[in-house]
Amino acid sequence: MANSKYEYVKKFEMEDKLPPCNWIIVRIDGWHFHGFSDTHEFDKPNDENALNLMNSCAVSMAEHFTDIVFAYGVSDEYSFIWSERSQSYGRRASKILSLCVSYFTSMYVIKWKDFFPQKDLKKPPCFDGRIVLYPRVKMVRDYLCWRQVDCHINNQYNTCCWMLIKSGKSEKEAQELLKGTLAKDKNELLFQQFGINYNELPDIFRKGSCVYKDYAEETVKVDTCGNPVKRRRERVVVGHFDIIGDGFWDEHPYILKED
Amino acid sequence: MANSKYEYVKKFEMEDKLPPCNWIIVRIDGWHFHGFSDTHEFDKPNDENALNLMNSCAVSMAEHFTDIVFAYGVSDEYSFIWSERSQSYGRRASKILSLCVSYFTSMYVIKWKDFFPQKDLKKPPCFDGRIVLYPRVKMVRDYLCWRQVDCHINNQYNTCCWMLIKSGKSEKEAQELLKGTLAKDKNELLFQQFGINYNELPDIFRKGSCVYKDYAEETVKVDTCGNPVKRRRERVVVGHFDIIGDGFWDEHPYILKED
Amino acid sequence: MANSKYEYVKKFEMEDKLPPCNWIIVRIDGWHFHGFSDTHEFDKPNDENALNLMNSCAVSMAEHFTDIVFAYGVSDEYSFIWSERSQSYGRRASKILSLCVSYFTSMYVIKWKDFFPQKDLKKPPCFDGRIVLYPRVKMVRDYLCWRQVDCHINNQYNTCCWMLIKSGKSEKEAQELLKGTLAKDKNELLFQQFGINYNELPDIFRKGSCVYKDYAEETVKVDTCGNPVKRRRERVVVGHFDIIGDGFWDEHPYILKED
Amino acid sequence: MANSKYEYVKKFEMEDKLPPCNWIIVRIDGWHFHGFSDTHEFDKPNDENALNLMNSCAVSMAEHFTDIVFAYGVSDEYSFIWSERSQSYGRRASKILSLCVSYFTSMYVIKWKDFFPQKDLKKPPCFDGRIVLYPRVKMVRDYLCWRQVDCHINNQYNTCCWMLIKSGKSEKEAQELLKGTLAKDKNELLFQQFGINYNELPDIFRKGSCVYKDYAEETVKVDTCGNPVKRRRERVVVGHFDIIGDGFWDEHPYILKED
Repeated sequence: MANSKYEYVKKFEMEDKLPPCNWIIVRIDGWHFHGFSDTHEFDKPNDENALNLMNSCAVSMAEHFTDIVFAYGVSDEYSFIWSERSQSYGRRASKILSLCVSYFTSMYVIKWKDFFPQKDLKKPPCFDGRIVLYPRVKMVRDYLCWRQVDCHINNQYNTCCWMLIKSGKSEKEAQELLKGTLAKDKNELLFQQFGINYNELPDIFRKGSCVYKDYAEETVKVDTCGNPVKRRRERVVVGHFDIIGDGFWDEHPYILKED
Repeated sequence: MANSKYEYVKKFEMEDKLPPCNWIIVRIDGWHFHGFSDTHEFDKPNDENALNLMNSCAVSMAEHFTDIVFAYGVSDEYSFIWSERSQSYGRRASKILSLCVSYFTSMYVIKWKDFFPQKDLKKPPCFDGRIVLYPRVKMVRDYLCWRQVDCHINNQYNTCCWMLIKSGKSEKEAQELLKGTLAKDKNELLFQQFGINYNELPDIFRKGSCVYKDYAEETVKVDTCGNPVKRRRERVVVGHFDIIGDGFWDEHPYILKED
Repeated sequence: MANSKYEYVKKFEMEDKLPPCNWIIVRIDGWHFHGFSDTHEFDKPNDENALNLMNSCAVSMAEHFTDIVFAYGVSDEYSFIWSERSQSYGRRASKILSLCVSYFTSMYVIKWKDFFPQKDLKKPPCFDGRIVLYPRVKMVRDYLCWRQVDCHINNQYNTCCWMLIKSGKSEKEAQELLKGTLAKDKNELLFQQFGINYNELPDIFRKGSCVYKDYAEETVKVDTCGNPVKRRRERVVVGHFDIIGDGFWDEHPYILKED
Repeated sequence: MANSKYEYVKKFEMEDKLPPCNWIIVRIDGWHFHGFSDTHEFDKPNDENALNLMNSCAVSMAEHFTDIVFAYGVSDEYSFIWSERSQSYGRRASKILSLCVSYFTSMYVIKWKDFFPQKDLKKPPCFDGRIVLYPRVKMVRDYLCWRQVDCHINNQYNTCCWMLIKSGKSEKEAQELLKGTLAKDKNELLFQQFGINYNELPDIFRKGSCVYKDYAEETVKVDTCGNPVKRRRERVVVGHFDIIGDGFWDEHPYILKED
């Protein structure tokens, strides 16, 4: 049975190659994760296990898709930066997008038990994704600033809100109290009412998570004279740094390097 | 900390609305499933449990995304047909694609144990996906014909190939023997050498799987006079039909209905 | 001097093939034609010479680009419908768009003197263009209805407005008088105040212009017995018809024929 | 007569915004200009009047569309570089493309008589166009190098070819003689057989044409003390420079300035 009669339908497949020399950011986002986090009783405002699960999946991503040069995560969202030079999958948008989203989801379900040994997965976790292109490193940096500033703003607000709720306010009252407050007001509130110094909260909450390749010298054996034989080894690591300033980038110049 | 300084980066997000009045087909495909099926020792040429797992995930998809009007699966591939009228997610391509792929992957991992209780998942299953648009029902029908003819051709070839291998030939010898054979030669070979009547093999292998909504009358209670009170009830079902001829479509006219 | 070093820049050219089996409408529109028509003192509300010039260019278009099956023009706007089956220029959007706009503009300047022998061209006429795709004939018909209804509405309004202005009102006063009036009010006004029966105004003003291929039998010679030898001949013609009802389309079934 | 019933057809218009911060190159190309130049008996291998006509149209373009920062032309082709910062027409691709092509075509026909006073326009000139995006200045420079190297290669070949033809060879013989020759062979041939020093041919033939804005101080009046009052004035100019090396760009740093 020849298939030629119907093969014309393949002509409807449209090319979706991404233009060369643009940094490719794939941002995935938990879908209806408000409900998902309620169902699984995540700690509020931040569930450290849930964040670590996200980070662990992101590490797997960076190990698996070697053209990912950096990833930044906050809450149920993760941004994966593919090198502007990447030729993976012919730079086809749907291929890159679907593989990222599928692989991440797969790891999330598989690793669930490692991070929530006491909790069964009651709902299927699901992530949507989108691709954004940036023509220059400066804009990739600004994109990451945008996400990290968002992390700060949301975390500070949520911390205040949940402290108020835990102290007996209703959600509505808490929101009302916070309306129109500035960053410093919120810090003040946390300190005065709850004895919390916002800047001493864990970095993972305040700064989000960075995933990237680091290079370490490690002793692989000892030679016949008893001297250590070292090798430069690549590892994917997680850190919680300020990525708005230049410090981190100056120390890791190889991450975002323009042609 | 205001975020306005960096928000310009949002301007790089491009609109990707799919044009109206086109049927949207999302086809997902197991990624490196050759290796995946080896690792998990799937039966050859067809693993019924693996197919049932795929079908079970497809049923979940059709229950979850209500604009999916029909799905057709064969091997590690599934095509989901979204109604031409669907307005879900503003018809944004990346949203529809990523959610389909993520939800399917999630279900696949979650349901694995139901279909392979004796086997641990040793590798993360991963699916790529793509969207194809068809402007008319006729072409959607032809698309499905294309996939089902492909199912026939591949299944017949694989059945012959694996019977030869199981009878002692090497993979290479088997391929050599089948080179240039026609459909009827392969049927003959199966019958003569292995006593297999190809047309009596299970439909799920020869025809693939259809997932769609069916409507059944069911008795929901009995009224005060003792008469049954019936209700029309929608259920997502799986079947293994010929979808090349008109029969199935004539019986289910509501599935592919053009505006 | 080899050019290979720089040829990588060609990789930035993106494919822009239009999907198959969609009707391609190229709509061009006079750019800043308000000023253009003032400069060249076009008659108001309609300049018959200007409309005839547009139509003459459209005829040239349909003769030159043989995949154009129909064109509809009103005021300084023209819509060219390319057959859904067209494979011209590999269905590349930028090729089709740019050639249409360029050819039309070229003809407009070249033919200017034929329609305005007394007027010099004082400003360069310029047209913008866009492509819209329609997956079915029904929508192409509705598109044309949309344009023709627009023609009616604008022409009726403009006719009233200019009659009032010519009778001594200022533009502002005329607009004020027409605010909120219905179609029948405007007809009444034209009749009562100016003795104009709107429905007796020339069709070209009220209905716009249709350009299409017609087939006529013509006598090409007389044979040796004195009998006429006839041939079916294709000609591109202009007409001013109602294209909202079915009449015109029933008489010209070959124009919009779906596969 | 309300139009709302048909307005749904507008939903088929797709957004085609070009991404921000990319240089937009619109390259237009004479369509079937081989025939056009034969019909109008253009000088071979280069017709100075035809080139000057192209340049004059390009100057009009740069004056009219103020976001064009540079244009480069060779033969019947012209590339217009729009600033990466341009927000004209909302960066809509079809708007930018169609207006460029239309305006250029319009000027070409209008100015024809200025450059060919003895020749009537016998065929409509027509140009196709395409848009290419470049994310960085370096690539825009390389794009221009690519075009200028092409100019060199073609001009040298054509000069040789036409000298041979004018000396009595057939077109085929001339092509045969040039097959496989290097740049220096062609220079040698021109010098030995025809006494032509290739490098002394006019720049406009060998280097193509650059169109850009230059700034000149000019005396606008004389003040009461008799001193000249100067003003910086912008003019669109044409030049024939090497644009492969850095010289021109160092002298005109404002033309391609990255954000």
